[in-house]
Amino acid sequence: MARVVVDVMPKPEILDPQGKAVLGALPRLGFSGVTDVRQGKRFELEIEGELTDDVVEQVRQMAETLLSNPVIEDFEVHVEEHSVAEVAASEGR
Amino acid sequence: MARVVVDVMPKPEILDPQGKAVLGALPRLGFSGVTDVRQGKRFELEIEGELTDDVVEQVRQMAETLLSNPVIEDFEVHVEEHSVAEVAASEGR
Repeated sequence: MARVVVDVMPKPEILDPQGKAVLGALPRLGFSGVTDVRQGKRFELEIEGELTDDVVEQVRQMAETLLSNPVIEDFEVHVEEHSVAEVAASEGR
Repeated sequence: MARVVVDVMPKPEILDPQGKAVLGALPRLGFSGVTDVRQGKRFELEIEGELTDDVVEQVRQMAETLLSNPVIEDFEVHVEEHSVAEVAASEGR
């Protein structure tokens, strides 16, 4: 079993209202020093069997055809040892 | 200028209808071998000045109070050299 992560973010030239909303809320909560916030999507895919180059290429095609809209979004595919849940558990949260 | 990423995922015990919808669509698009899909959020924060431990701790508090709902979501904070857009550009996309 392998875990492949696909990160999808709005292209830099695309307006990101969600990110702007977060950016605007930070000072009201007493946080400073953040100059920009971009919000996108993260997919954690569990893949059966061995992680070959072919499998990673298949995930790239999934990212291109289903998980992102290439007109307005960029994506990145990478392998991760630990899920966010495992990291949170290891930090006692 | 530094870039800190906050990944937010639904806790494992929480139903993830978006992830299930993606999982269900993959075979129809001819993809096989994916046993589970979880969908969450990714925030890219641009921080001015130097990235000290204090700053990373501030981002953790932002993640806990604004970017995630600790009842149903886990989060992870990490520093990344390149944004998704820079990786996509370096791959000629």
